[in-house]
Amino acid sequence: MIILPGPASKNLANRLASELKTRLIPVFSKSFPDGESYIRIEGDLEGEEVVIVQTTSPPQDKRMMQLFLMASEAKDQGASNILAVIPYFAYSRQDKAFLPGEAFSAKTVISILKACGVTQIITVNAHNPQALASFTLPIKDLSAIPLLARYFKDQGYKGAVSLSMGKKGLANAKEAATILGGEYDFIPTQRDPHTGKVTIEEKRLDVKGKVAILFDDIISSGGTMAKSVAHTKNQGASKVYAACVHPLLMANARERIVQNGADEVVGTDSVTSMVSVVSVAPIIAEALVKNGA
Amino acid sequence: MIILPGPASKNLANRLASELKTRLIPVFSKSFPDGESYIRIEGDLEGEEVVIVQTTSPPQDKRMMQLFLMASEAKDQGASNILAVIPYFAYSRQDKAFLPGEAFSAKTVISILKACGVTQIITVNAHNPQALASFTLPIKDLSAIPLLARYFKDQGYKGAVSLSMGKKGLANAKEAATILGGEYDFIPTQRDPHTGKVTIEEKRLDVKGKVAILFDDIISSGGTMAKSVAHTKNQGASKVYAACVHPLLMANARERIVQNGADEVVGTDSVTSMVSVVSVAPIIAEALVKNGA
Repeated sequence: MIILPGPASKNLANRLASELKTRLIPVFSKSFPDGESYIRIEGDLEGEEVVIVQTTSPPQDKRMMQLFLMASEAKDQGASNILAVIPYFAYSRQDKAFLPGEAFSAKTVISILKACGVTQIITVNAHNPQALASFTLPIKDLSAIPLLARYFKDQGYKGAVSLSMGKKGLANAKEAATILGGEYDFIPTQRDPHTGKVTIEEKRLDVKGKVAILFDDIISSGGTMAKSVAHTKNQGASKVYAACVHPLLMANARERIVQNGADEVVGTDSVTSMVSVVSVAPIIAEALVKNGA
Repeated sequence: MIILPGPASKNLANRLASELKTRLIPVFSKSFPDGESYIRIEGDLEGEEVVIVQTTSPPQDKRMMQLFLMASEAKDQGASNILAVIPYFAYSRQDKAFLPGEAFSAKTVISILKACGVTQIITVNAHNPQALASFTLPIKDLSAIPLLARYFKDQGYKGAVSLSMGKKGLANAKEAATILGGEYDFIPTQRDPHTGKVTIEEKRLDVKGKVAILFDDIISSGGTMAKSVAHTKNQGASKVYAACVHPLLMANARERIVQNGADEVVGTDSVTSMVSVVSVAPIIAEALVKNGA
Protein backbone atom coordinates (compact mmCIF):
# COMPACT_ATOMS: atom_id res chain seq x y z
CA MET A 1 0.00 0.00 0.00
CA ILE A 2 1.17 3.49 -0.90
CA ILE A 3 -0.17 6.71 0.62
CA LEU A 4 -0.49 9.72 -1.69
CA PRO A 5 -0.80 12.93 0.32
CA GLY A 6 -3.18 15.28 -1.48
CA PRO A 7 -2.31 18.98 -1.22
CA ALA A 8 -5.27 19.56 1.11
CA SER A 9 -4.39 16.79 3.61
CA LYS A 10 -0.61 16.54 3.83
CA ASN A 11 -0.44 16.37 7.63
CA LEU A 12 -3.18 13.80 7.94
CA ALA A 13 -1.55 11.68 5.22
CA ASN A 14 1.77 11.80 7.09
CA ARG A 15 0.09 10.72 10.33
CA LEU A 16 -1.65 7.92 8.47
CA ALA A 17 1.60 6.70 6.93
CA SER A 18 3.28 6.67 10.38
CA GLU A 19 0.32 4.91 11.95
CA LEU A 20 0.34 2.21 9.25
CA LYS A 21 4.14 2.15 8.83
CA THR A 22 3.57 2.31 5.12
CA ARG A 23 5.27 4.06 2.22
CA LEU A 24 4.27 7.57 1.19
CA ILE A 25 4.98 9.01 -2.25
CA PRO A 26 5.05 12.83 -2.33
CA VAL A 27 2.68 14.77 -4.55
CA PHE A 28 4.02 18.04 -5.91
CA SER A 29 1.30 20.60 -6.52
CA LYS A 30 1.11 24.23 -7.54
CA SER A 31 -1.38 26.69 -8.93
CA PHE A 32 -0.69 28.49 -12.20
CA PRO A 33 -1.12 32.28 -12.10
CA ASP A 34 -4.57 31.89 -13.70
CA GLY A 35 -5.66 29.47 -10.93
CA GLU A 36 -5.39 26.10 -12.68
CA SER A 37 -4.00 23.29 -10.54
CA TYR A 38 -0.91 21.32 -11.46
CA ILE A 39 -0.22 17.91 -9.93
CA ARG A 40 2.83 15.64 -10.21
CA ILE A 41 3.17 12.32 -8.42
CA GLU A 42 6.80 11.80 -7.53
CA GLY A 43 7.04 8.03 -7.88
CA ASP A 44 5.79 5.01 -9.74
CA LEU A 45 2.39 3.52 -8.86
CA GLU A 46 2.26 0.61 -11.30
CA GLY A 47 0.60 -2.43 -9.73
CA GLU A 48 0.33 -0.65 -6.37
CA GLU A 49 -2.59 -0.37 -4.02
CA VAL A 50 -2.88 3.40 -3.71
CA VAL A 51 -4.56 5.40 -0.95
CA ILE A 52 -5.11 9.06 -1.90
CA VAL A 53 -5.77 11.32 1.09
CA GLN A 54 -7.50 14.56 0.14
CA THR A 55 -10.16 16.46 2.03
CA THR A 56 -12.57 18.64 0.06
CA SER A 57 -13.42 21.45 2.45
CA PRO A 58 -13.42 24.95 0.86
CA PRO A 59 -12.15 25.66 -1.75
CA GLN A 60 -14.12 22.50 -2.58
CA ASP A 61 -14.00 22.63 -6.38
CA LYS A 62 -10.24 23.18 -6.49
CA ARG A 63 -9.65 20.30 -4.10
CA MET A 64 -12.08 18.03 -5.93
CA MET A 65 -10.27 18.80 -9.19
CA GLN A 66 -6.90 18.01 -7.56
CA LEU A 67 -8.39 14.71 -6.37
CA PHE A 68 -9.69 13.92 -9.89
CA LEU A 69 -6.23 14.67 -11.31
CA MET A 70 -4.40 12.52 -8.74
CA ALA A 71 -6.77 9.57 -9.21
CA SER A 72 -6.58 9.75 -13.02
CA GLU A 73 -2.81 9.85 -12.91
CA ALA A 74 -2.70 6.87 -10.52
CA LYS A 75 -5.03 5.00 -12.87
CA ASP A 76 -2.91 5.88 -15.92
CA GLN A 77 0.19 4.63 -14.12
CA GLY A 78 -1.53 1.28 -13.60
CA ALA A 79 -2.35 1.34 -9.87
CA SER A 80 -4.07 -1.94 -9.00
CA ASN A 81 -6.58 -0.28 -6.70
CA ILE A 82 -7.33 3.36 -5.83
CA LEU A 83 -8.88 4.12 -2.49
CA ALA A 84 -9.82 7.76 -1.86
CA VAL A 85 -9.80 8.95 1.75
CA ILE A 86 -11.99 12.08 1.67
CA PRO A 87 -12.37 13.05 5.34
CA TYR A 88 -14.71 15.96 4.58
CA PHE A 89 -16.83 15.09 1.58
CA ALA A 90 -18.02 18.20 -0.29
CA TYR A 91 -21.32 18.08 -2.19
CA SER A 92 -22.60 15.24 -0.03
CA ARG A 93 -25.50 17.36 1.23
CA GLN A 94 -27.19 17.32 -2.17
CA ASP A 95 -27.77 13.60 -1.75
CA LYS A 96 -31.08 13.52 -3.60
CA ALA A 97 -32.94 15.77 -6.03
CA PHE A 98 -35.30 17.76 -3.82
CA LEU A 99 -36.87 19.75 -6.68
CA PRO A 100 -37.31 18.74 -10.34
CA GLY A 101 -34.27 19.63 -12.43
CA GLU A 102 -31.93 19.86 -9.46
CA ALA A 103 -28.46 18.60 -10.12
CA PHE A 104 -27.78 15.68 -7.85
CA SER A 105 -24.29 16.68 -6.91
CA ALA A 106 -23.29 13.84 -4.56
CA LYS A 107 -24.13 11.31 -7.26
CA THR A 108 -22.24 13.29 -9.91
CA VAL A 109 -19.10 13.64 -7.80
CA ILE A 110 -19.09 9.93 -6.99
CA SER A 111 -19.58 9.00 -10.67
CA ILE A 112 -16.67 11.27 -11.58
CA LEU A 113 -14.43 9.67 -8.95
CA LYS A 114 -15.34 6.28 -10.40
CA ALA A 115 -14.54 7.49 -13.94
CA CYS A 116 -11.17 8.71 -12.63
CA GLY A 117 -10.36 5.22 -11.41
CA VAL A 118 -11.33 5.39 -7.72
CA THR A 119 -12.49 1.99 -6.53
CA GLN A 120 -13.49 2.77 -2.94
CA ILE A 121 -14.11 5.80 -0.73
CA ILE A 122 -13.54 6.28 2.98
CA THR A 123 -15.08 9.36 4.55
CA VAL A 124 -15.75 10.64 8.06
CA ASN A 125 -19.13 11.68 9.47
CA ALA A 126 -20.79 12.17 6.09
CA HIS A 127 -23.93 14.26 5.99
CA ASN A 128 -26.13 11.36 4.98
CA PRO A 129 -24.23 8.07 4.88
CA GLN A 130 -27.35 6.05 3.93
CA ALA A 131 -27.85 8.13 0.79
CA LEU A 132 -24.17 7.93 -0.16
CA ALA A 133 -24.19 4.16 0.30
CA SER A 134 -26.69 3.78 -2.55
CA PHE A 135 -24.29 5.10 -5.17
CA THR A 136 -21.96 3.47 -7.65
CA LEU A 137 -18.86 3.15 -5.45
CA PRO A 138 -18.41 1.39 -2.11
CA ILE A 139 -18.27 4.09 0.57
CA LYS A 140 -17.24 3.56 4.16
CA ASP A 141 -18.40 6.26 6.55
CA LEU A 142 -16.47 6.45 9.83
CA SER A 143 -17.43 8.33 12.99
CA ALA A 144 -14.86 10.55 14.68
CA ILE A 145 -17.17 11.33 17.61
CA PRO A 146 -15.49 8.67 19.83
CA LEU A 147 -12.08 10.29 19.15
CA LEU A 148 -13.42 13.67 20.23
CA ALA A 149 -15.00 12.15 23.36
CA ARG A 150 -11.72 10.41 24.21
CA TYR A 151 -9.87 13.71 23.86
CA PHE A 152 -12.08 15.24 26.56
CA LYS A 153 -11.86 12.13 28.74
CA ASP A 154 -8.06 12.36 28.55
CA GLN A 155 -8.32 15.99 29.65
CA GLY A 156 -10.06 14.81 32.84
CA TYR A 157 -13.69 15.36 31.83
CA LYS A 158 -14.91 11.84 32.47
CA GLY A 159 -18.59 12.04 33.42
CA ALA A 160 -19.25 15.26 31.49
CA VAL A 161 -22.70 15.67 29.92
CA SER A 162 -22.72 14.98 26.16
CA LEU A 163 -25.10 17.15 24.15
CA SER A 164 -26.02 17.19 20.48
CA MET A 165 -27.38 19.95 18.27
CA GLY A 166 -30.99 19.03 17.49
CA LYS A 167 -32.74 15.72 18.01
CA LYS A 168 -31.36 14.46 14.69
CA GLY A 169 -27.85 14.58 16.13
CA LEU A 170 -28.73 12.62 19.28
CA ALA A 171 -26.75 9.61 18.05
CA ASN A 172 -23.61 11.77 18.34
CA ALA A 173 -24.33 12.59 22.01
CA LYS A 174 -25.13 8.97 22.74
CA GLU A 175 -21.94 7.78 21.05
CA ALA A 176 -19.86 10.30 23.03
CA ALA A 177 -21.57 9.31 26.29
CA THR A 178 -20.47 5.69 25.90
CA ILE A 179 -16.92 7.00 26.27
CA LEU A 180 -17.39 9.91 28.66
CA GLY A 181 -19.73 7.94 30.88
CA GLY A 182 -22.04 10.87 31.75
CA GLU A 183 -25.61 11.67 30.73
CA TYR A 184 -26.54 12.63 27.18
CA ASP A 185 -29.29 14.76 25.70
CA PHE A 186 -30.02 17.07 22.77
CA ILE A 187 -30.46 20.82 22.54
CA PRO A 188 -33.66 21.49 20.54
CA THR A 189 -32.15 23.77 17.89
CA GLN A 190 -34.07 24.77 14.80
CA ARG A 191 -32.76 26.51 11.75
CA ASP A 192 -35.00 28.46 9.41
CA PRO A 193 -34.17 27.03 5.96
CA HIS A 194 -34.79 30.43 4.29
CA THR A 195 -33.23 32.94 6.67
CA GLY A 196 -30.70 30.60 8.34
CA LYS A 197 -31.80 32.03 11.70
CA VAL A 198 -31.30 29.60 14.58
CA THR A 199 -33.83 29.33 17.41
CA ILE A 200 -33.82 27.04 20.44
CA GLU A 201 -37.03 25.76 22.01
CA GLU A 202 -37.55 25.93 25.75
CA LYS A 203 -36.10 22.80 27.33
CA ARG A 204 -34.51 22.13 30.71
CA LEU A 205 -31.11 20.46 30.39
CA ASP A 206 -29.58 18.64 33.37
CA VAL A 207 -26.29 20.58 33.26
CA LYS A 208 -26.32 22.77 36.39
CA GLY A 209 -22.82 22.83 37.89
CA LYS A 210 -21.63 20.23 35.39
CA VAL A 211 -19.21 20.21 32.49
CA ALA A 212 -21.14 20.03 29.19
CA ILE A 213 -19.63 19.05 25.87
CA LEU A 214 -21.56 19.91 22.71
CA PHE A 215 -20.95 17.61 19.74
CA ASP A 216 -21.73 18.34 16.11
CA ASP A 217 -20.61 16.97 12.74
CA ILE A 218 -19.70 20.37 11.32
CA ILE A 219 -19.14 23.88 12.55
CA SER A 220 -19.58 26.10 9.51
CA SER A 221 -20.76 29.66 10.26
CA GLY A 222 -20.93 28.63 13.93
CA GLY A 223 -24.41 30.12 14.43
CA THR A 224 -26.07 26.98 15.79
CA MET A 225 -23.11 26.13 18.02
CA ALA A 226 -22.79 29.68 19.39
CA LYS A 227 -26.48 29.81 20.38
CA SER A 228 -26.31 26.32 21.86
CA VAL A 229 -23.26 27.20 23.93
CA ALA A 230 -25.02 30.31 25.30
CA HIS A 231 -28.14 28.23 26.03
CA THR A 232 -26.16 25.60 27.93
CA LYS A 233 -24.22 28.24 29.87
CA ASN A 234 -27.48 29.99 30.82
CA GLN A 235 -28.75 26.75 32.27
CA GLY A 236 -25.86 26.76 34.69
CA ALA A 237 -23.19 24.50 33.18
CA SER A 238 -19.85 25.11 34.92
CA LYS A 239 -17.89 24.65 31.69
CA VAL A 240 -19.04 24.32 28.09
CA TYR A 241 -16.95 22.82 25.28
CA ALA A 242 -17.78 22.95 21.58
CA ALA A 243 -16.61 19.87 19.68
CA CYS A 244 -17.02 19.03 16.02
CA VAL A 245 -15.64 16.60 13.49
CA HIS A 246 -15.29 19.08 10.61
CA PRO A 247 -14.13 22.52 11.80
CA LEU A 248 -14.91 24.50 8.63
CA LEU A 249 -15.10 27.64 10.81
CA MET A 250 -16.14 30.16 8.17
CA ALA A 251 -15.19 33.80 8.89
CA ASN A 252 -15.18 34.43 12.67
CA ALA A 253 -17.06 31.27 13.72
CA ARG A 254 -14.56 30.33 16.45
CA GLU A 255 -14.55 33.81 18.04
CA ARG A 256 -18.35 33.85 17.93
CA ILE A 257 -18.57 30.55 19.81
CA VAL A 258 -15.98 31.61 22.39
CA GLN A 259 -17.72 34.95 22.91
CA ASN A 260 -20.92 33.03 23.61
CA GLY A 261 -19.24 31.25 26.50
CA ALA A 262 -17.35 28.23 25.16
CA ASP A 263 -14.21 27.35 27.14
CA GLU A 264 -12.67 25.76 24.05
CA VAL A 265 -13.55 24.84 20.48
CA VAL A 266 -12.18 21.46 19.40
CA GLY A 267 -12.16 19.80 15.98
CA THR A 268 -10.38 17.07 14.03
CA ASP A 269 -7.87 17.21 11.21
CA SER A 270 -10.51 16.08 8.71
CA VAL A 271 -10.20 19.75 7.82
CA THR A 272 -7.08 21.77 8.54
CA SER A 273 -7.94 24.53 11.00
CA MET A 274 -6.58 26.21 14.13
CA VAL A 275 -8.72 23.89 16.31
CA SER A 276 -7.76 20.61 14.57
CA VAL A 277 -6.26 19.04 17.71
CA VAL A 278 -7.74 15.55 17.33
CA SER A 279 -6.48 13.37 14.46
CA VAL A 280 -8.79 11.07 12.53
CA ALA A 281 -5.72 9.05 11.43
CA PRO A 282 -6.38 6.19 13.94
CA ILE A 283 -9.89 5.39 12.68
CA ILE A 284 -8.83 5.66 9.03
CA ALA A 285 -5.81 3.44 9.66
CA GLU A 286 -8.05 0.91 11.38
CA ALA A 287 -10.50 0.93 8.45
CA LEU A 288 -7.65 0.43 5.98
CA VAL A 289 -6.28 -2.50 7.97
CA LYS A 290 -9.74 -4.10 8.25
CA ASN A 291 -10.07 -3.54 4.52
CA GLY A 292 -7.21 -6.00 4.11
CA ALA A 293 -4.92 -3.29 2.80
CA MET B 1 -32.31 21.50 -29.98
CA ILE B 2 -32.36 23.18 -26.58
CA ILE B 3 -29.78 25.67 -25.33
CA LEU B 4 -28.83 25.50 -21.64
CA PRO B 5 -27.13 28.73 -20.54
CA GLY B 6 -24.45 27.87 -18.00
CA PRO B 7 -23.95 30.45 -15.22
CA ALA B 8 -20.62 31.54 -16.76
CA SER B 9 -21.96 32.16 -20.28
CA LYS B 10 -25.52 33.48 -20.00
CA ASN B 11 -25.12 36.31 -22.51
CA LEU B 12 -23.38 34.18 -25.10
CA ALA B 13 -26.06 31.48 -24.72
CA ASN B 14 -28.78 34.09 -25.27
CA ARG B 15 -27.06 35.37 -28.41
CA LEU B 16 -26.69 31.80 -29.64
CA ALA B 17 -30.38 31.05 -29.06
CA SER B 18 -31.38 34.21 -31.01
CA GLU B 19 -28.97 33.40 -33.81
CA LEU B 20 -30.33 29.86 -34.11
CA LYS B 21 -33.94 30.78 -33.28
CA THR B 22 -33.96 27.88 -30.88
CA ARG B 23 -35.43 27.25 -27.45
CA LEU B 24 -33.49 28.10 -24.31
CA ILE B 25 -34.24 26.54 -20.93
CA PRO B 26 -33.03 28.64 -17.97
CA VAL B 27 -30.55 27.24 -15.49
CA PHE B 28 -30.91 28.49 -11.93
CA SER B 29 -27.63 28.55 -10.05
CA LYS B 30 -26.39 29.75 -6.70
CA SER B 31 -23.47 29.24 -4.37
CA PHE B 32 -24.05 28.02 -0.82
CA PRO B 33 -22.35 30.08 1.90
CA ASP B 34 -19.54 27.49 2.08
CA GLY B 35 -18.91 27.86 -1.68
CA GLU B 36 -20.57 24.73 -3.08
CA SER B 37 -22.46 25.25 -6.33
CA TYR B 38 -26.14 24.49 -6.74
CA ILE B 39 -27.69 23.97 -10.18
CA ARG B 40 -31.33 23.52 -11.21
CA ILE B 41 -32.47 23.12 -14.81
CA GLU B 42 -35.87 24.72 -15.17
CA GLY B 43 -37.41 22.43 -17.76
CA ASP B 44 -37.57 18.89 -19.06
CA LEU B 45 -34.79 17.57 -21.30
CA GLU B 46 -36.05 14.05 -21.99
CA GLY B 47 -35.26 12.99 -25.54
CA GLU B 48 -33.87 16.42 -26.38
CA GLU B 49 -30.67 17.38 -28.14
CA VAL B 50 -29.08 19.64 -25.52
CA VAL B 51 -26.40 22.28 -26.04
CA ILE B 52 -24.81 23.42 -22.76
CA VAL B 53 -22.94 26.72 -23.05
CA GLN B 54 -20.42 27.24 -20.27
CA THR B 55 -17.00 28.83 -20.47
CA THR B 56 -14.35 27.76 -17.98
CA SER B 57 -12.22 30.86 -17.50
CA PRO B 58 -11.30 31.61 -13.85
CA PRO B 59 -12.67 30.49 -11.45
CA GLN B 60 -12.04 27.41 -13.63
CA ASP B 61 -12.74 24.66 -11.11
CA LYS B 62 -16.05 26.14 -10.01
CA ARG B 63 -17.18 26.54 -13.61
CA MET B 64 -15.99 23.05 -14.56
CA MET B 65 -17.95 21.63 -11.62
CA GLN B 66 -21.07 23.56 -12.70
CA LEU B 67 -20.61 22.11 -16.18
CA PHE B 68 -20.24 18.58 -14.77
CA LEU B 69 -23.43 19.08 -12.73
CA MET B 70 -25.44 20.43 -15.70
CA ALA B 71 -24.31 17.63 -18.00
CA SER B 72 -25.04 14.92 -15.42
CA GLU B 73 -28.50 16.32 -14.80
CA ALA B 74 -29.22 16.49 -18.56
CA LYS B 75 -28.06 12.88 -18.85
CA ASP B 76 -30.22 11.79 -15.92
CA GLN B 77 -33.22 13.49 -17.51
CA GLY B 78 -32.68 11.43 -20.64
CA ALA B 79 -31.30 13.99 -23.09
CA SER B 80 -30.65 12.23 -26.41
CA ASN B 81 -27.40 14.06 -27.02
CA ILE B 82 -25.33 16.50 -24.94
CA LEU B 83 -23.07 18.93 -26.73
CA ALA B 84 -20.88 21.13 -24.54
CA VAL B 85 -19.90 24.53 -25.92
CA ILE B 86 -16.84 25.48 -23.87
CA PRO B 87 -15.54 28.68 -25.53
CA TYR B 88 -12.52 28.95 -23.22
CA PHE B 89 -11.35 25.46 -22.33
CA ALA B 90 -9.51 25.40 -18.99
CA TYR B 91 -6.81 22.79 -18.40
CA SER B 92 -6.21 22.38 -22.13
CA ARG B 93 -2.61 23.57 -21.80
CA GLN B 94 -1.62 20.40 -19.93
CA ASP B 95 -2.29 18.42 -23.09
CA LYS B 96 0.45 15.87 -22.54
CA ALA B 97 2.55 14.67 -19.60
CA PHE B 98 5.78 16.66 -19.88
CA LEU B 99 7.45 15.09 -16.83
CA PRO B 100 6.92 11.60 -15.35
CA GLY B 101 4.05 11.55 -12.85
CA GLU B 102 2.45 14.72 -14.18
CA ALA B 103 -1.31 14.68 -14.14
CA PHE B 104 -2.55 14.99 -17.68
CA SER B 105 -5.30 17.43 -16.96
CA ALA B 106 -6.80 17.97 -20.43
CA LYS B 107 -7.32 14.21 -20.75
CA THR B 108 -8.83 13.97 -17.27
CA VAL B 109 -11.28 16.81 -17.83
CA ILE B 110 -12.42 15.34 -21.15
CA SER B 111 -12.87 11.87 -19.60
CA ILE B 112 -14.94 13.44 -16.84
CA LEU B 113 -17.13 15.29 -19.35
CA LYS B 114 -17.67 11.98 -21.13
CA ALA B 115 -18.58 10.26 -17.85
CA CYS B 116 -21.08 13.07 -17.19
CA GLY B 117 -22.81 12.31 -20.49
CA VAL B 118 -21.25 14.86 -22.84
CA THR B 119 -21.11 13.45 -26.37
CA GLN B 120 -19.33 16.27 -28.21
CA ILE B 121 -17.37 19.43 -27.42
CA ILE B 122 -17.13 22.70 -29.32
CA THR B 123 -14.41 25.10 -28.23
CA VAL B 124 -12.77 28.25 -29.61
CA ASN B 125 -9.05 28.75 -30.26
CA ALA B 126 -7.92 25.90 -28.02
CA HIS B 127 -4.31 25.94 -26.90
CA ASN B 128 -3.41 22.80 -28.81
CA PRO B 129 -6.30 21.51 -30.93
CA GLN B 130 -4.24 18.61 -32.36
CA ALA B 131 -3.62 17.24 -28.87
CA LEU B 132 -7.25 17.66 -27.82
CA ALA B 133 -8.42 15.87 -30.94
CA SER B 134 -6.70 12.67 -29.85
CA PHE B 135 -8.92 12.24 -26.80
CA THR B 136 -12.04 10.24 -26.09
CA LEU B 137 -14.65 12.78 -27.22
CA PRO B 138 -15.10 14.47 -30.59
CA ILE B 139 -13.88 18.06 -30.23
CA LYS B 140 -14.41 20.82 -32.74
CA ASP B 141 -12.04 23.75 -32.40
CA LEU B 142 -13.22 27.00 -34.03
CA SER B 143 -11.18 30.11 -34.75
CA ALA B 144 -12.54 33.52 -33.72
CA ILE B 145 -9.64 35.39 -35.37
CA PRO B 146 -11.72 36.16 -38.51
CA LEU B 147 -14.47 37.68 -36.30
CA LEU B 148 -11.90 39.95 -34.63
CA ALA B 149 -10.44 40.93 -38.01
CA ARG B 150 -13.93 41.72 -39.35
CA TYR B 151 -14.59 43.92 -36.31
CA PHE B 152 -11.58 46.08 -37.24
CA LYS B 153 -12.48 46.06 -40.94
CA ASP B 154 -15.95 47.33 -40.01
CA GLN B 155 -14.30 50.11 -38.00
CA GLY B 156 -12.57 51.27 -41.19
CA TYR B 157 -9.18 49.61 -40.72
CA LYS B 158 -9.10 47.74 -44.03
CA GLY B 159 -5.47 47.30 -45.05
CA ALA B 160 -4.12 47.42 -41.50
CA VAL B 161 -1.02 45.31 -40.73
CA SER B 162 -1.87 42.06 -38.89
CA LEU B 163 0.73 40.94 -36.38
CA SER B 164 1.01 37.87 -34.18
CA MET B 165 2.83 37.29 -30.93
CA GLY B 166 5.75 34.99 -31.70
CA LYS B 167 6.34 32.93 -34.80
CA LYS B 168 4.10 30.17 -33.45
CA GLY B 169 1.12 32.49 -33.70
CA LEU B 170 1.80 33.50 -37.31
CA ALA B 171 -1.25 31.55 -38.50
CA ASN B 172 -3.39 34.03 -36.53
CA ALA B 173 -1.87 37.02 -38.34
CA LYS B 174 -2.20 35.29 -41.69
CA GLU B 175 -5.84 34.41 -41.00
CA ALA B 176 -6.60 38.03 -40.00
CA ALA B 177 -4.83 39.38 -43.09
CA THR B 178 -7.11 37.42 -45.42
CA ILE B 179 -9.92 39.63 -44.07
CA LEU B 180 -8.09 42.91 -43.45
CA GLY B 181 -6.22 42.72 -46.72
CA GLY B 182 -2.96 44.22 -45.43
CA GLU B 183 0.45 42.70 -44.76
CA TYR B 184 1.06 40.22 -41.95
CA ASP B 185 4.08 39.38 -39.84
CA PHE B 186 5.05 38.20 -36.38
CA ILE B 187 6.67 39.97 -33.44
CA PRO B 188 9.56 37.76 -32.21
CA THR B 189 8.48 37.53 -28.56
CA GLN B 190 10.09 35.10 -26.16
CA ARG B 191 8.93 34.21 -22.70
CA ASP B 192 11.30 32.76 -20.11
CA PRO B 193 9.48 29.64 -18.89
CA HIS B 194 10.92 30.06 -15.37
CA THR B 195 10.71 33.78 -14.68
CA GLY B 196 7.87 34.59 -17.10
CA LYS B 197 9.93 37.57 -18.33
CA VAL B 198 9.12 38.58 -21.90
CA THR B 199 11.83 39.71 -24.30
CA ILE B 200 11.55 40.75 -27.94
CA GLU B 201 14.35 40.15 -30.43
CA GLU B 202 15.52 42.90 -32.78
CA LYS B 203 13.38 42.82 -35.89
CA ARG B 204 12.24 45.54 -38.27
CA LEU B 205 8.46 45.53 -38.78
CA ASP B 206 6.92 47.26 -41.78
CA VAL B 207 4.50 49.38 -39.73
CA LYS B 208 5.78 52.97 -40.07
CA GLY B 209 2.79 55.32 -40.38
CA LYS B 210 0.41 52.37 -40.59
CA VAL B 211 -2.33 50.95 -38.37
CA ALA B 212 -1.15 47.72 -36.73
CA ILE B 213 -3.42 45.16 -35.13
CA LEU B 214 -1.85 42.60 -32.79
CA PHE B 215 -3.68 39.27 -32.56
CA ASP B 216 -3.32 36.65 -29.83
CA ASP B 217 -5.36 33.71 -28.57
CA ILE B 218 -5.30 34.84 -24.95
CA ILE B 219 -4.43 37.91 -22.98
CA SER B 220 -3.78 36.71 -19.45
CA SER B 221 -1.37 38.87 -17.42
CA GLY B 222 -0.94 41.02 -20.54
CA GLY B 223 2.86 41.07 -20.28
CA THR B 224 3.57 39.80 -23.79
CA MET B 225 0.91 41.99 -25.38
CA ALA B 226 2.03 45.13 -23.51
CA LYS B 227 5.65 44.72 -24.61
CA SER B 228 4.58 43.94 -28.18
CA VAL B 229 2.38 47.04 -28.32
CA ALA B 230 5.27 49.22 -27.12
CA HIS B 231 7.61 47.55 -29.65
CA THR B 232 5.20 48.20 -32.54
CA LYS B 233 4.59 51.80 -31.44
CA ASN B 234 8.36 52.37 -31.24
CA GLN B 235 8.71 51.24 -34.83
CA GLY B 236 6.42 54.07 -35.89
CA ALA B 237 2.93 52.57 -36.20
CA SER B 238 0.31 55.34 -36.28
CA LYS B 239 -2.18 53.30 -34.28
CA VAL B 240 -1.83 50.00 -32.43
CA TYR B 241 -4.73 47.73 -31.46
CA ALA B 242 -4.52 44.70 -29.15
CA ALA B 243 -6.96 41.94 -30.10
CA CYS B 244 -7.46 38.55 -28.50
CA VAL B 245 -9.97 35.74 -28.52
CA HIS B 246 -9.93 35.06 -24.78
CA PRO B 247 -9.64 38.27 -22.72
CA LEU B 248 -8.78 36.72 -19.35
CA LEU B 249 -7.19 40.06 -18.38
CA MET B 250 -5.81 39.13 -14.95
CA ALA B 251 -5.38 42.03 -12.53
CA ASN B 252 -4.54 45.24 -14.41
CA ALA B 253 -3.69 43.65 -17.78
CA ARG B 254 -5.87 46.03 -19.81
CA GLU B 255 -4.44 49.18 -18.17
CA ARG B 256 -0.93 47.85 -18.68
CA ILE B 257 -1.52 47.36 -22.42
CA VAL B 258 -3.15 50.78 -22.83
CA GLN B 259 -0.32 52.45 -20.90
CA ASN B 260 2.11 50.84 -23.32
CA GLY B 261 0.42 52.59 -26.22
CA ALA B 262 -2.57 50.53 -27.37
CA ASP B 263 -5.45 52.59 -28.76
CA GLU B 264 -7.92 49.88 -27.75
CA VAL B 265 -8.00 46.35 -26.33
CA VAL B 266 -10.58 44.10 -27.99
CA GLY B 267 -11.72 40.59 -27.09
CA THR B 268 -14.59 38.18 -27.65
CA ASP B 269 -17.36 36.96 -25.34
CA SER B 270 -15.69 33.54 -25.05
CA VAL B 271 -14.88 35.03 -21.64
CA THR B 272 -16.98 37.76 -20.07
CA SER B 273 -14.85 40.88 -19.68
CA MET B 274 -15.03 44.64 -20.17
CA VAL B 275 -13.49 44.27 -23.63
CA SER B 276 -15.76 41.46 -24.87
CA VAL B 277 -17.16 43.45 -27.81
CA VAL B 278 -17.02 40.70 -30.44
CA SER B 279 -19.39 37.75 -30.08
CA VAL B 280 -18.35 34.21 -30.97
CA ALA B 281 -22.05 33.29 -31.33
CA PRO B 282 -21.99 33.36 -35.17
CA ILE B 283 -19.21 30.78 -35.55
CA ILE B 284 -20.69 28.53 -32.86
CA ALA B 285 -24.15 28.77 -34.46
CA GLU B 286 -22.64 27.89 -37.82
CA ALA B 287 -20.85 24.88 -36.34
CA LEU B 288 -24.06 23.69 -34.68
CA VAL B 289 -25.99 24.00 -37.94
CA LYS B 290 -23.27 22.15 -39.89
CA ASN B 291 -23.37 19.56 -37.14
CA GLY B 292 -26.92 18.80 -38.27
CA ALA B 293 -28.37 20.13 -35.02
